[in-house]
Amino acid sequence: MNTPEIPEIVVRRLPLYARTLSWLVEENVQTVSSQELGANLGMSPAQIRKDLSYFGEFGKQGTGYDVKYLLSQLRQILGVEREWLVALVGVGDLGHAIARYGGFGKRGFKIAALFDNDPRKIGQQVGELEILGMEALPMVVKGLRLRLGIVAVPAAKAQEVTDYLVECGIRGILNYAPINLHVPKGVRVRYIDPVVLLQSMTYHLKSG
Amino acid sequence: MNTPEIPEIVVRRLPLYARTLSWLVEENVQTVSSQELGANLGMSPAQIRKDLSYFGEFGKQGTGYDVKYLLSQLRQILGVEREWLVALVGVGDLGHAIARYGGFGKRGFKIAALFDNDPRKIGQQVGELEILGMEALPMVVKGLRLRLGIVAVPAAKAQEVTDYLVECGIRGILNYAPINLHVPKGVRVRYIDPVVLLQSMTYHLKSG
Repeated sequence: MNTPEIPEIVVRRLPLYARTLSWLVEENVQTVSSQELGANLGMSPAQIRKDLSYFGEFGKQGTGYDVKYLLSQLRQILGVEREWLVALVGVGDLGHAIARYGGFGKRGFKIAALFDNDPRKIGQQVGELEILGMEALPMVVKGLRLRLGIVAVPAAKAQEVTDYLVECGIRGILNYAPINLHVPKGVRVRYIDPVVLLQSMTYHLKSG
Repeated sequence: MNTPEIPEIVVRRLPLYARTLSWLVEENVQTVSSQELGANLGMSPAQIRKDLSYFGEFGKQGTGYDVKYLLSQLRQILGVEREWLVALVGVGDLGHAIARYGGFGKRGFKIAALFDNDPRKIGQQVGELEILGMEALPMVVKGLRLRLGIVAVPAAKAQEVTDYLVECGIRGILNYAPINLHVPKGVRVRYIDPVVLLQSMTYHLKSG
């Protein structure tokens, strides 16, 4: 199913479909039309049908999609029908909040190891995890077969930490530091920067 | 300068340029070419020149852009040469972390008021702010002339909180709840959902 010609923009939308479907499951909704999905997501029904058609035939004309079935298919396509363990580097205020974030577990992810370079933090407990020193990273990544890492260190340290994660075998990085990261081919980075998002709104609000 | 025909995708990129330029200022870099900016951001120099050309002539051919000047112009275009006060609703673990996040101040934003509906939290102090009850929202939004709000409540409450924020006069919402929000025309929403980003990577990693 993972044919290479799927546009990246489509891949980026699949998690939004999955998120909406999870929501519908919780609300005990059993079938959903592309119109309803589109209304929920602010997208056209045609766009949704086209996106999903890359991966097969999921709906019946006239009756819409079976919510649970489509969700399970999407979770398989996204690779989250199993749990992914994630390394978190940088356990300051932000790292603590990420480590405690309740939204990962239900959706396929678990923070499995915490790392920091501050000797005062190493050995401390956060939830059920102990903060480890950076020198433990290669062994843990190998031992737990980690492929995903979260970077929650200051901007000035983020590239260095990223290089180290990649060297240890991490192939996907979620970066909270407000800086652009450089990674070799085959490694992916996604960014979380609330200020960038706020600024894209003030542009529109500034004259109002 | 705020001509309506600027594509939204360009507006979304401006904060990334500003972020990179801030970084260059800290590194004492005085001029930067579109090639260098492009290399940093993983974009083509032509794209950067085209994006910036919507707003005027910022660079001299051959010498590149004056970093401080371009940054100050971008901050003006983005409307963040002044400080924006922001209301934060939902002061759980995540809300606490957002309230304490150090990255807002330098880049144009200040969390100015905290709200929660939990009587045990109302009256508590977080940094220099006291958590207020939801009934105080209209008065505070009006009094401080707030236009921006951050939603950090559980998914099941996010739409209701959003409706209330909009009713009170908020026009830009940064939503941390893992749910799609519906807002009237003229109100903007941006989303932060780490799981959506992680899932867009596992898609690529799942067979590896």
